[in-house]
Amino acid sequence: MGSQAIGPLSLNTVTVKEQWGLAECIEGCARHGIPGISPWRDVLQAMGVEKAARQIRDAGLLVSGLCRGGMFTAGDEAGRRAAIEDNRRAIDEAQALGAACLVMVCGGLPAGSRDLPGARRMVRDGLAEILPYARSAGVVIGLEPLHPMTCADRSVLSTLGQALDLCDELGPGTGVAVDVYHVWWDPGLESKMARAGSRIAGFHVCDWLVPTNDLVFDRGMPGDGVIDIPGVRAMAEAAGYEGAVECELLSRRWWAEDPDRLLSIIKDRHATVC
Amino acid sequence: MGSQAIGPLSLNTVTVKEQWGLAECIEGCARHGIPGISPWRDVLQAMGVEKAARQIRDAGLLVSGLCRGGMFTAGDEAGRRAAIEDNRRAIDEAQALGAACLVMVCGGLPAGSRDLPGARRMVRDGLAEILPYARSAGVVIGLEPLHPMTCADRSVLSTLGQALDLCDELGPGTGVAVDVYHVWWDPGLESKMARAGSRIAGFHVCDWLVPTNDLVFDRGMPGDGVIDIPGVRAMAEAAGYEGAVECELLSRRWWAEDPDRLLSIIKDRHATVC
Repeated sequence: MGSQAIGPLSLNTVTVKEQWGLAECIEGCARHGIPGISPWRDVLQAMGVEKAARQIRDAGLLVSGLCRGGMFTAGDEAGRRAAIEDNRRAIDEAQALGAACLVMVCGGLPAGSRDLPGARRMVRDGLAEILPYARSAGVVIGLEPLHPMTCADRSVLSTLGQALDLCDELGPGTGVAVDVYHVWWDPGLESKMARAGSRIAGFHVCDWLVPTNDLVFDRGMPGDGVIDIPGVRAMAEAAGYEGAVECELLSRRWWAEDPDRLLSIIKDRHATVC
Repeated sequence: MGSQAIGPLSLNTVTVKEQWGLAECIEGCARHGIPGISPWRDVLQAMGVEKAARQIRDAGLLVSGLCRGGMFTAGDEAGRRAAIEDNRRAIDEAQALGAACLVMVCGGLPAGSRDLPGARRMVRDGLAEILPYARSAGVVIGLEPLHPMTCADRSVLSTLGQALDLCDELGPGTGVAVDVYHVWWDPGLESKMARAGSRIAGFHVCDWLVPTNDLVFDRGMPGDGVIDIPGVRAMAEAAGYEGAVECELLSRRWWAEDPDRLLSIIKDRHATVC
């Protein structure tokens, strides 16, 4: 607890999306001694990328990721082209911020489709198309497998093993963003984390509540649920990960909380249960 | 569509649990020409096992499964012993019904526990303990992997691959109950279904709705969601499965429906989209 091995805490801005814009998040991190930040693109664009990059730099914050690229699946070619263009802009933004990775939420089934293998091919093809641009920008693509309960509408990338298969296929410049919430149930987690090795580009924490009352917006504060977060962290460390521990909470309960109190709790949990 | 290859339809009684007891389910299946039934133990016990077995036999219904055994995980030895005893009774009941398998919902994390590997060991140990009794009764143990979103509170058996590993370890008398709702998202589904081969002891259908508003009670009628049910069925048939197609809906929406209308819709969907 509180050992030197624990990576620096980073605040994912979605955690306070109902309370704060990006400027307040930057100030809040500085005020609470939280060394890292991971913006979502909506608050980044609202502030302006250049201004945000400057203020983050001035505050001395590391940028553990930019959320998010991806959403490659679409019912027609125009939709898929639009996603590619949007991902290029996301790469530009991640480069401007010096983000450790661009986190990829790859997209669910196109509306009306039941073709899951086809959607997974769209993801692979979209990633292959943007990857040269990401490489030339020096931006690591952080493939984030999302919990299988999001497969229909958010991410057909469902497991860490599947993400690593994609990394193998796509090659340099790709890695994985591991969120304990999405992978904790996986019977093969330990071997997959070892297989990930140096490709772990991000490590996100929150907790699985019992009961969980919403498939998207009921994530728990680390320590309030059933995930063995130190156990998963130990796997990441054994794989060589030394990056940030990013707290990403999508939670109606915590969005109703005073944000300074929320950051204090997160800092405490990072020191004690992450 | 309506081809000879489609296995006989079976009604899982939970589908009408708010409308009918077991006697009404048996009569309903006979009235609608549904050739199979799969009782839950609560309605079975309410009717009485011997009486139920006789009426099911008299109605000429096949019994595609008995729901459910399992729940091996507990915080103390007394709880684990009680589960073993209860599973022996479930085996007796499955034998009395001539059920194709005893469906196993293996249990989630014990209350207050974050030890997922430990819970999985409890499941393996519990299964190993009841298996000789099941073998001597001629009852096939149908391991049902449940969707990973149930890992905390219902089933630490999360994937088909994990279930097949257990079958390999435990040996004869074990098989898998495949519910499309629980496995459709699995990137390795096709290879795992092939690996399952003759061990597929049950095949359950319902659908994944978009959006899904509840983690337990918002399953969709086959055809109303995004699962490629014919695709998964084709995998089962390619593996050699010739058993029933069991419709198991846990749905507040359908529990509010007139049960005869509900059975008509299920019959139609079985003929057209399962």
